[in-house]
Amino acid sequence: MDPRVEEHARILVEWSTEIKRNDMVVIRATPESHDLAVAVAKKASEKGAKIMTIFQSEELDRAIFDGADDETLQKMSEHYLGAVEKADVFIGLSAPMNTKALANVDPKRLVMTQKANKPISDRILDKRWCGTVHPCKTLAQQAGMSLNEYQDFVYGATLTDWEEESKNMYLIKEHLESHNDIRFVGPATDLYAKTEGRIWIASDGKHNMPSGEVFTAPIEDTVEGSIFFDIPFMQMGKVVEGVRLEFEKGEVVEYSADKNEQVLKAILETDEGAKHLGEMAIGTNRGIKDYTLNMLFDEKIGDTIHCALGRAYKDCNGTNESAVHVDMIKTMIEGEIIAGDEVIYSKGKFFFE
Amino acid sequence: MDPRVEEHARILVEWSTEIKRNDMVVIRATPESHDLAVAVAKKASEKGAKIMTIFQSEELDRAIFDGADDETLQKMSEHYLGAVEKADVFIGLSAPMNTKALANVDPKRLVMTQKANKPISDRILDKRWCGTVHPCKTLAQQAGMSLNEYQDFVYGATLTDWEEESKNMYLIKEHLESHNDIRFVGPATDLYAKTEGRIWIASDGKHNMPSGEVFTAPIEDTVEGSIFFDIPFMQMGKVVEGVRLEFEKGEVVEYSADKNEQVLKAILETDEGAKHLGEMAIGTNRGIKDYTLNMLFDEKIGDTIHCALGRAYKDCNGTNESAVHVDMIKTMIEGEIIAGDEVIYSKGKFFFE
Repeated sequence: MDPRVEEHARILVEWSTEIKRNDMVVIRATPESHDLAVAVAKKASEKGAKIMTIFQSEELDRAIFDGADDETLQKMSEHYLGAVEKADVFIGLSAPMNTKALANVDPKRLVMTQKANKPISDRILDKRWCGTVHPCKTLAQQAGMSLNEYQDFVYGATLTDWEEESKNMYLIKEHLESHNDIRFVGPATDLYAKTEGRIWIASDGKHNMPSGEVFTAPIEDTVEGSIFFDIPFMQMGKVVEGVRLEFEKGEVVEYSADKNEQVLKAILETDEGAKHLGEMAIGTNRGIKDYTLNMLFDEKIGDTIHCALGRAYKDCNGTNESAVHVDMIKTMIEGEIIAGDEVIYSKGKFFFE
Repeated sequence: MDPRVEEHARILVEWSTEIKRNDMVVIRATPESHDLAVAVAKKASEKGAKIMTIFQSEELDRAIFDGADDETLQKMSEHYLGAVEKADVFIGLSAPMNTKALANVDPKRLVMTQKANKPISDRILDKRWCGTVHPCKTLAQQAGMSLNEYQDFVYGATLTDWEEESKNMYLIKEHLESHNDIRFVGPATDLYAKTEGRIWIASDGKHNMPSGEVFTAPIEDTVEGSIFFDIPFMQMGKVVEGVRLEFEKGEVVEYSADKNEQVLKAILETDEGAKHLGEMAIGTNRGIKDYTLNMLFDEKIGDTIHCALGRAYKDCNGTNESAVHVDMIKTMIEGEIIAGDEVIYSKGKFFFE
């Protein structure tokens, strides 16, 4: 076995979920993430935990959508809840065989299932939980890489000193929370928002692995100025590039995109909340150097910031409501992040560097 | 998908476990049985059931044995029990990737785990449950066949009219239970036992698929006479051939084997119960024509009988106790099965044929 798989498992078990004796651990794995499941099962067993593994596959999910009527989809899976209720830890190992297996399922029926099983996902969020990616051919292809390259990419982002990373992220959080506003300055960009009473969250790999971002929900109607997002992102199956947004009293008043502007337009027209920012965040993972059109990785790229149109996180004390949450990313290597009168970050360096 | 996979799934869902609306169904699958899991999930969803799939793999099991200390192995998996308690139906789809993955685990530690999780296996037995085999390369190799041949073999045994089979098996059961004894007569064979008060069970595919046997536990000390088992069987990793046993007052008083007699000796010397018969049975599945050294299939071969040394089934009102239960099979195409004064079977035909 690739020793990096074992190191990945060690980080999930020791850092992300802090597994200890007598923990009941649910692993959700796909056939493609079998090797990582084996490594996690071994490492967690060494800690004295009991393992149960749930079989995830897009084709299995699809079979259920193909077979079930709406009445069936609207029922909760009591047995799944039964397992989750007795669990202390939940670890999801994503490695699809076919990311398109659900492409032709009616989105209404997808939402129906999510709603029916919300008690399960809510219970999982009460546990020590973590989601990660195991590099597989399907994801390598989606990222436009060979499997070897993609393994290097994933492990470059994941196998790091999270204790050290966490220390730095909490330092950034503390400094941001000691001020009442935030400002992103850079090429074609000067964006300001008030953040008083909002919480900055240091996402240090306890729930997502890899992680590396410090984020908050700005006060919705205080966002002012303009921003240019130079990193492309995927939405509705299309790559959107070169987005410019201009805000007045929190609302987008002008917008453009160099490519697929109609997708940006559709996002903004979703609902009222989609015209406001739900998130402002700083990417801190310098192990991620390139975008791969997978937001789990892209929004964490080191020396970037990102903003999301739409839904805010309640954990940040955010209040913006929307059906969407669309992240857009900007390189900051030539920019500055300012909070109150303090320069938090300038051209590749945080204040403590 | 091979239409036989869908027919296999239909039989499991409609015949074996009679899945209906609102049933909570646990499927236990391996990566190799993914296709059958997909077909079962679809068919069960069509009935209105909710599906949860558990990931089984020998390498995952092995990782737990490698990682866990004895204290951990002796704990029950509360989360697994949590799922099973909320389930109505449990379907196990066996298709290993490596049948030898647990070969070097200390048998004491295997037993430790089985004991710890006995509440789970006991609860499963209270449900509608069924275990089956999905033909895969690993099992084909073990059976000494190509995958194509092995698929033909498994589906030949499985895709049959179980309602019709069941009717015949229950007819055999009724006639056997209307008498107080059983006698197997054939080449080098005349074996007699009393069966008063014992139950004959018609195994018609409700729990094992394929199935096809009618079996009981004879009254231990009434077995008299001799029998020659002409079909080889696997025990302790060795193939035992041409077993002859002679009984007096229920106990084996003479024995021999044409090949690996020392294995037969070891079985008989396990304990007192191993010298007595725990089971006498009639194989009725004419879709199985050849032995493959897999007892799940071999003991059901049509036109055979089998006897087991050792532990009796409580469901038959059997009382013989032993650490072992070793089945041995005899072709009956030239033999007769007699109960009381009735010839139940003679040279290829049951009384109703």
